[in-house]
This record gives sequence, C-alpha cells and structure tokens, in this order.
Amino acid sequence: TAEGGSQQVVAQAAGSGPTYTGLTVTTEDNITTIMLNRPAKKNAITTEMYTELVSALDRAGKDSSVLTVITGAGDFYCSGNDLSNFTKIPEGGIDALAKKSGELLRSYVQAYIDFPKPLVAVMNGPAVGISVTVLPLFELVYATDRATLHTPFSQLGQSPEGCSSYTFPKIMGGSKASEMLLFNKKLTAAQACDQGLVTEVFPDASFQTEVWSRIKAYAKLPPNSLALSKQLIRSAERERLTAVNGAEVERLVERWQSDECMAAIMGFFQGKSKL
Amino acid sequence: TAEGGSQQVVAQAAGSGPTYTGLTVTTEDNITTIMLNRPAKKNAITTEMYTELVSALDRAGKDSSVLTVITGAGDFYCSGNDLSNFTKIPEGGIDALAKKSGELLRSYVQAYIDFPKPLVAVMNGPAVGISVTVLPLFELVYATDRATLHTPFSQLGQSPEGCSSYTFPKIMGGSKASEMLLFNKKLTAAQACDQGLVTEVFPDASFQTEVWSRIKAYAKLPPNSLALSKQLIRSAERERLTAVNGAEVERLVERWQSDECMAAIMGFFQGKSKL
Amino acid sequence: TAEGGSQQVVAQAAGSGPTYTGLTVTTEDNITTIMLNRPAKKNAITTEMYTELVSALDRAGKDSSVLTVITGAGDFYCSGNDLSNFTKIPEGGIDALAKKSGELLRSYVQAYIDFPKPLVAVMNGPAVGISVTVLPLFELVYATDRATLHTPFSQLGQSPEGCSSYTFPKIMGGSKASEMLLFNKKLTAAQACDQGLVTEVFPDASFQTEVWSRIKAYAKLPPNSLALSKQLIRSAERERLTAVNGAEVERLVERWQSDECMAAIMGFFQGKSKL
Repeated sequence: TAEGGSQQVVAQAAGSGPTYTGLTVTTEDNITTIMLNRPAKKNAITTEMYTELVSALDRAGKDSSVLTVITGAGDFYCSGNDLSNFTKIPEGGIDALAKKSGELLRSYVQAYIDFPKPLVAVMNGPAVGISVTVLPLFELVYATDRATLHTPFSQLGQSPEGCSSYTFPKIMGGSKASEMLLFNKKLTAAQACDQGLVTEVFPDASFQTEVWSRIKAYAKLPPNSLALSKQLIRSAERERLTAVNGAEVERLVERWQSDECMAAIMGFFQGKSKL
Repeated sequence: TAEGGSQQVVAQAAGSGPTYTGLTVTTEDNITTIMLNRPAKKNAITTEMYTELVSALDRAGKDSSVLTVITGAGDFYCSGNDLSNFTKIPEGGIDALAKKSGELLRSYVQAYIDFPKPLVAVMNGPAVGISVTVLPLFELVYATDRATLHTPFSQLGQSPEGCSSYTFPKIMGGSKASEMLLFNKKLTAAQACDQGLVTEVFPDASFQTEVWSRIKAYAKLPPNSLALSKQLIRSAERERLTAVNGAEVERLVERWQSDECMAAIMGFFQGKSKL
Repeated sequence: TAEGGSQQVVAQAAGSGPTYTGLTVTTEDNITTIMLNRPAKKNAITTEMYTELVSALDRAGKDSSVLTVITGAGDFYCSGNDLSNFTKIPEGGIDALAKKSGELLRSYVQAYIDFPKPLVAVMNGPAVGISVTVLPLFELVYATDRATLHTPFSQLGQSPEGCSSYTFPKIMGGSKASEMLLFNKKLTAAQACDQGLVTEVFPDASFQTEVWSRIKAYAKLPPNSLALSKQLIRSAERERLTAVNGAEVERLVERWQSDECMAAIMGFFQGKSKL
C-alpha cells in the first residue's frame, strides 16, 4: 500500500537512505540535510538532479525529522539551472525539450510550495537563478557573508520562476524586485538581508558553527507546533503560489522556444555574455 | 432599538462611561484611550478582559472621538494571554475550554479587523503574544525604546494568532516572520521598527510627551477623511483577514487540546521553560 | 484597421510625434521619455494634462521603445493634482465635476496598471500626491537626494488614490503606510528608499548622468524578455489593482462632494492650510 511504502521510506531515511548521483542526504539530530553535491560544477542543477531533489524533498517531508536543511558542497551554494540542460535536444526538437523542462520545473517548485515542515537554507556561498528564486519558500535563510544572490533572467532572454514574480515584489516591493528580476542586479548577502530575502548573515569563518548550533536548538522545539504553524502560514498562500508557478512555467516554456532566448544562451556559451 | 442603544453608548462614552475591572477607558481631546490596567500581572489579559476589550473597542468605534489609543498601565504594555486562563477547566473538560477560548479569541481579533477609525498603540513597555500579533491591525505603533516584542508560540506548543500568520510575512517577508512566529525570536523596539511592525521608537524619558503631542495633533485632522481612508485601506484586506482569523483559531483550538501543548504549558508553570 | 492605426502611431512616435501642451515626449536610444513640462507650476497636473498623459502612455506602450521614462522639467518632479482643477465648476455643479474628475482619475491610474513595458521614474525633484501614489506601479524609481515624497490627503479632506491604499501597505507595512496616507508625513528620498518606494537615491550633482547611463544600458537588454517578465509580475496583481483603483475613485468622488473636503481645499487656497 501507499502507507506501507511511506513507512519504508521513513525507515530508509533514518538509516542509509537511497543513493543519489548529485545529492547527499543525511538525517541526524532530528534534521534531514539535503546537500547539492556537484562542487566541480558549482552545484549547477542537472535534469537528473531536479528529479532527485523532488524525491528527496518528498522523503524528507515524510520522515521523522523536525527540520529540513538544503545546502551546497564546496564554495558555492548553487549556480542554478545547468544551461547544458538546453543542449541535449530530444527527438521532438526544441519544443519538446521546452515542454519537458517546463513540467520538471513546475513539479520542482511545487515540491517547495507543498513542503510540510520548516525548511532552512544554509547558504554556504553564491547562489544563482532558481536557487535564489525559491528562497522565499524557505522558513529560514542563513547566509555566509561570502554569498551573493543573482537572477540574470533578462540577460539570458528568460523570465522569472520559482514564484519570484510574486514573492519578490511581496517581500521587497516592486522596484527592488525589478532590479533583480528584470535588470540582473547581483546582491550581496547583506543587501539581500536588508531586503528580507535572507534571514541573517554570518561571518564566513564561523558560519557553519554558528548556523548549525542554531538549527540544532530549533530542532528540539515541539515538532507538531512547528510543522502546523508553518502549514498555517503557507495555507494562506498555497493556492496563489501554485497559480503563480503555473503562469511562470507557461511563460518560460514560450521563452525557451524564442529566438531571443536562443541567441542569449548561445552568446553565453560563446563567452559573449558575461553574467 | 439597536440604534437607540448605540446613541446611549455614545452619550456614556463622552461622559463617565461604563466601569471595567481590567481596563480604564477615557475620552479627551477627541481621543478615546483604552488602558490595560492590571500592572501587577504585567497587564496579562484574562478571559474577562478579552470580553471587556471587545466591548470597549465597540464603544470607541461608535463614539465621537477621532482616534482610539490602546496602552498599558505601569512598566509593561501587555504580557499577552494570561496562561492561568487555561487552568480553570469547566465541566466539559479541556475540549469545552478550548472551544470557548477559541470563540473568544476569534471575536477579540475580529474587533480589531472591523475597527472603523485609526487605532494607535502607545507601547509603553514590553509586549508578548497576542498583544504583538495584532499590531499590524493598528494604524500607528509608537514604542518606547524599552519595549521588546515576543511571540513564543512554538515554545508553548501553540501556533500564531491575531492574523499574524498572514500579516507578519506580508510586512517583513516570510523568513523574518518565521524567526518570530516559529522560532521565538524576541525583537527590540528598534528591530521591530526596521521590520515595519513598529512605526517609530522614542527614548523612554520623553516617550509619553512626544507621543501624546503627536497624537493630539493628528486628532485635529478632518475626522471623516481619516476614518474613510482607514476603512478604504482595510477594505482591500478585510475578507482575507477574517478568513485568516478563522483558520488560525481553528488550528489553535486543536493545539490547545494536544498533549504537546499541555506538556509545554505545564513546563512553563513548573518553571522548566524560560521564555 | 486598428492594426494600421497602431502602426501609424509607432511611425509618429519614432519621429516627431504628436504635440502636447503640458508634456514633451521624445524617443531616443530605445527609450521613450515623457516629460511633465509645466515648470512654472511645479508640473502640477491639469485636467488637460491627465488626458495627454493617458494618450502618451498609450502611444509609448505601442511604440518600438524598450523602456519608458517619466520625468519633470525644472526643479520639481510633480506637485500632483492641480487644485485649480476643482475651481472650474461646470453646469452640473460640484457633483458633475466630481464624477467627471473621478472618471479621468480612474482612466489615468489604469493606464499605469496596464502599461506593458518597464516604466522608469526619473524623479528630478519633490513629488506630491498622485505623482507619489502611482510610484509602486513603476518598475524603477530613481530619485535625486533633493526629492521629497508627500501625500497630504487628510489635510485636504481627501483619501488615497493611485492604488496606494493597497500598494503602500504592501510595500512598507500598514503602520509606515498610515504615516504617509493618513497622517501626511513627508519623506526624504532616502527614507522613501528605505521603505521600498524609491529604488535608489543619487547625489543631485551627478543625478542625470548616473541615472541615464543606467537606463541606456538597460534599454539594450532583450526587449521581449523585459516586457514579458514585467507583464508576468503585473499579471499576478492586475485584477486586484483594477478593483482597488475603482474603490479608491468611488470614495474620492464622495469626498470631493463633502463639506469637509470643500472646507479643507478652501482653507488651502486662502493660505490657512500649510502643506
């Protein structure tokens, strides 16, 4: 049964868990940690890793942990969507690739919208694109002072995703959101904290120590109170966020099929465009 | 008739007014002031005081004053819900108490949502719980620099109320809201001002003088313009706030009946939990 | 055909364009600039200029430019609604004037809500009233440090417009919004930037140079990506903004017919009221 399957997953998550190619997932001290583990590519997210992340979030949501953490291996948090995802053109051509990528993106963002427990980003370095846009769907975002946040959508002929077209203006007001989402402004961690996108910034030297002692203390709070309070807050927005996710993906699938976007991505690969 | 009753209330409010056990209500210079007057208990709100506050807000909304002020007697603004409200178990047991408390809370918060004139908090000292969560339903929040703002819901096994599950993320972004609503972070008045929860902070020595001269000047502005502008702003949110209030109370009534919440409140009374 | 008409407009806008009495409109470097050009009256907006602005925005939205800029001639950005608009009473009396003014205001604000490209305010000096309230409908607001922002609605017996009853609380939280919209607080450019109403503040000496080099660089970004991203962000709010615009105008038409408002405007003209 589905129930039985779910219990099996819990048992696995508490133990060794499933094996992923681009992630390392561990559970300790009531905290499940999902680490993007592709440091040689600055933890850029491949098509395979999107699927793995959806699965890992689904398992973490059902396991017995109190908090779930997402972090990156090495010096980068995450460099966003791996643009080489766009170079493996399937039989159906660009249109089929765009549609398939859109569906994957939609389900990826929905996994954040529906996540049932407090979610914490331990931002160990710079973040780009989709790894920045989903941050407002986390409960806490702790960043090293080495981190930067960058969403260069228009430079790549694309448009906002991760619900950022709704959450960024909501958090920081439209004019600060436009700087990031339309005009490619890169923020320092401190600027992002001022704008409410980052909860708190820590000196890089003590980042891991300070952040993890904080998270371990929070993981001892009454678990149902935490989960139900998070769900209560999210419930006021879930329908809206789901609709925004759908609208963003629809627009992006069109963009991916446009000449303007093609030319911009081509320019990036040819080194003509510096982000 | 109801109309006649309402006119009678106006006459009373302009004069001596009704007598309350936990409040002192006065009207002067076009300002009705509702003072929480239980300083020995840091103005903690008893079941009786909730009912009195609903009544006092109803009268203030209908009297001839231009502004309504809420403040506290003594060094505290308000220490929130009096937890001893949970110790007087009625015949129906915990479940009946939870349901009755939920209904009282719902009507209390609704009185703020529906209040028809500008409402000003004169925060003369620290504020806890429900006295913090309803602040976004005020038009102005003036705080002494001695004030702190604390909503330790998860520590007590509870969940957010006062529409804070909606208003806090709206004002300060989700990640700053989570620090307060999920992870019990206590803010200074200055921090709360940075987050938009407090309008302005004043040095404690000159707090009362500065704040009251400001309020008295505002009370001379065109009254209909003020009231109708406030109602216009609120009208865009009233339905949403009412729905959020209902959802929060429902969740909290469940929480109050849970073992997790019982254990947390018991721990508080036994001095095991330090807020 | 409509299509043909639209193309004709494009041709005109690229060339000399139509002639306006209160505006100067130019298109250069993919940027259409609409300049309020009534410096002797601090660019106060007359009834005729409202109509011209609606027309100029409509043309700019359809021309081949990438960005549209609004700015003011001389030392002021815009001193808002020209109060002398209220002194030319038509045959139908005050009521007819109020209704006609309301319809003009509604269509003026709607032109901002529906504008299809990124819109930039180059705020070259102080801004008052309607020129402040529509700022959240811009994508970027660049201000000289000489600029101030002032919305003295209640002092004039009026109520908020330009969607500010919804956008101001959304951007800055209710209590900071009330200071401006209800209690006539005048902000410096720096304060407005802290509140998210202004994107960035520049020293007056280098204002024009710095801002225009920024805007010219942005105008070289992929145009469809910019326009479609802006429309995506706006689409999540358009229905709401349109409803708010309607509600605000309705309230304001009532206000304009009230004795309270009459007395306040009369007081202003007689120099009794200093804004």
